[in-house]
Amino acid sequence: MKIYNYAAGPAKLPDSVIKQIQEELPSVHGSGMSVLEISHRSSLFENILEDAKNDLKELMGIPDNYHILFFQGGGTGQFAAAPLNLATNNHKIALLDSGHWAARAGDEAVKLGFEVDTLASTKDNHYQSLPHLPKDTNGSVYDYLHLTMNNTIEGTAYHTPEKLPNTTLVADMSSNFLAETYNVNDYGLIFAGAQKNLGPAGVTVVIVRDDLVHPVEKIPSMLDYNLFVKKNSLYNTPPVFPIYAAGLVLKWLKDLGGVSEMQKINEHKSGLLYDFLDQSQMFSNHIKPSDRSLTNIPFTTGSDDLDAQVIKAATDHGLMSLKGHRSVGGLRASLYNAMPVEGAQALVDFLDNFEKNNKRG
Amino acid sequence: MKIYNYAAGPAKLPDSVIKQIQEELPSVHGSGMSVLEISHRSSLFENILEDAKNDLKELMGIPDNYHILFFQGGGTGQFAAAPLNLATNNHKIALLDSGHWAARAGDEAVKLGFEVDTLASTKDNHYQSLPHLPKDTNGSVYDYLHLTMNNTIEGTAYHTPEKLPNTTLVADMSSNFLAETYNVNDYGLIFAGAQKNLGPAGVTVVIVRDDLVHPVEKIPSMLDYNLFVKKNSLYNTPPVFPIYAAGLVLKWLKDLGGVSEMQKINEHKSGLLYDFLDQSQMFSNHIKPSDRSLTNIPFTTGSDDLDAQVIKAATDHGLMSLKGHRSVGGLRASLYNAMPVEGAQALVDFLDNFEKNNKRG
Repeated sequence: MKIYNYAAGPAKLPDSVIKQIQEELPSVHGSGMSVLEISHRSSLFENILEDAKNDLKELMGIPDNYHILFFQGGGTGQFAAAPLNLATNNHKIALLDSGHWAARAGDEAVKLGFEVDTLASTKDNHYQSLPHLPKDTNGSVYDYLHLTMNNTIEGTAYHTPEKLPNTTLVADMSSNFLAETYNVNDYGLIFAGAQKNLGPAGVTVVIVRDDLVHPVEKIPSMLDYNLFVKKNSLYNTPPVFPIYAAGLVLKWLKDLGGVSEMQKINEHKSGLLYDFLDQSQMFSNHIKPSDRSLTNIPFTTGSDDLDAQVIKAATDHGLMSLKGHRSVGGLRASLYNAMPVEGAQALVDFLDNFEKNNKRG
Repeated sequence: MKIYNYAAGPAKLPDSVIKQIQEELPSVHGSGMSVLEISHRSSLFENILEDAKNDLKELMGIPDNYHILFFQGGGTGQFAAAPLNLATNNHKIALLDSGHWAARAGDEAVKLGFEVDTLASTKDNHYQSLPHLPKDTNGSVYDYLHLTMNNTIEGTAYHTPEKLPNTTLVADMSSNFLAETYNVNDYGLIFAGAQKNLGPAGVTVVIVRDDLVHPVEKIPSMLDYNLFVKKNSLYNTPPVFPIYAAGLVLKWLKDLGGVSEMQKINEHKSGLLYDFLDQSQMFSNHIKPSDRSLTNIPFTTGSDDLDAQVIKAATDHGLMSLKGHRSVGGLRASLYNAMPVEGAQALVDFLDNFEKNNKRG
């Protein structure tokens, strides 16, 4: 039975990448040593790191005045790092409350003593559409605007950024990083945990514009952008294996044609599922069509019992990890970059069959 | 040619563990999914995490009133986490300056606004012996005493802890974790980056006594012991693969007979090298014998040129990563748990041959 894994992250990696990791696990680049064992100060790893940076730069069109850094600690680590490094003038940030992870980013900043203004929220309609900036908002009182580009749990995405004049835009791209094209120049800071579109859990990419990087007092070293820039992400031991694996995924994405090609495939994959859901009498997705995510698609029968039956039948069928997040319920299919078109089609076929075999009434 | 890797970390893993990872990489525990892809909320990963905790508890004899936590960020992350979580009464910590990493721990605490008293230092003799607590030091003015149990760069180790009455003992065990026996009850906090004796880089073990864990204001979530205790290290996505690999190393160590058996092997391995060095006319180790590390052994010919020749010849011979740390120079062999006796013997044989073939004068 072919297994498909629709987990929201950690999530599916390309089969060819897993095969390559497996093949070269005992001896990376013919060294006789496993990538799990090599020193982060070795030329072997230096090459892995530089390749990953160069490939990411090419794939996203990252301008020369941006730094590419590799941190640990995931998006949650960056919820602290972003205000600590960037909110040093006004100690005040603006937020669009587009869902769980946007709120969590705001909570972390508040916990650390920063002021957070939630400029708009769609909480009242269960985040089924995206909040937008109120007209004539004065950006100059904020150090930055925090935007969650893709809302993993709720299934929405800003396909173009909200722009607040006179302030920096900070984008959490964790769940649609490299899944659709964005213009890096629109942002002062982009960050993304690897474990959705880029690689295994354990590394977090930070892309930050040079003029925003400066020495900060009383900041833990592991969150210090200025230090990581100075040390090229090698102040202490980095997560060698997750960076190596991410590097292989970047090469896979380049071979496939890059981010714009990937976006077309993702539009096709998600289109298969959205089209099915929109015509179904049993299943539905409640997100405003223009705000729908390409990567995370929540849906439901409207009945908790029936949803649970679907999840169980899908699991028996090799379609794994379809349970929706506990805050939303229902089902959720994550169709990240590594999910092949066949995986989206297999899910649609299964749901279609389930519906035909379980007509209500 | 058989390759031996003497790197100081990331470092050698057991061959059998690398083989097992390789074999089950496409399908962990028969799931049809790679361990690189599974959700951290899956029962698959829950079992991996619980097994790792239970095995570590058994191996170290960790009492029930200690928590076992998995962080990201390495020892450097804990240099911040320890004072932020534990130095909340006096905001003052005591330190024995036994080398580079002890000093770095102190620097990080100072950077974060804590007061650090260096109670003793052996910097003046190039850290070739260990500093000890001055008599009649008043421990009650400190929140804790920070001790680097094994000094990776300098090649020394406290085989029994220095104890300061009326204060907590915090131990950085990064480079001899599970390599020799310690009594967990002597410590309030033990931490260790995995990438020396436990697994690949990317996970940091924290063992903390329950009464030291309490809510802390203005602490980044990724450094918050209280939060990690409440969430069983799953507040956000943990480094799944490094935890999985560490779990396999723990089972390997149990099969081998546990930490006391490992210590005997490590004493044998390091003994082979120390005995050779102590009789050699060409090579020497300058560390006070009772303070010598079991895991990190620096040595030198006394000549930078000759040291470089030895390193080059060793590399040609498949004996890798023997260059000493830049702050010490010379050579360093790290003989961590996963280094077999044959690896220590191969190094001794090589050095012996080199000496015989390159008599001075």
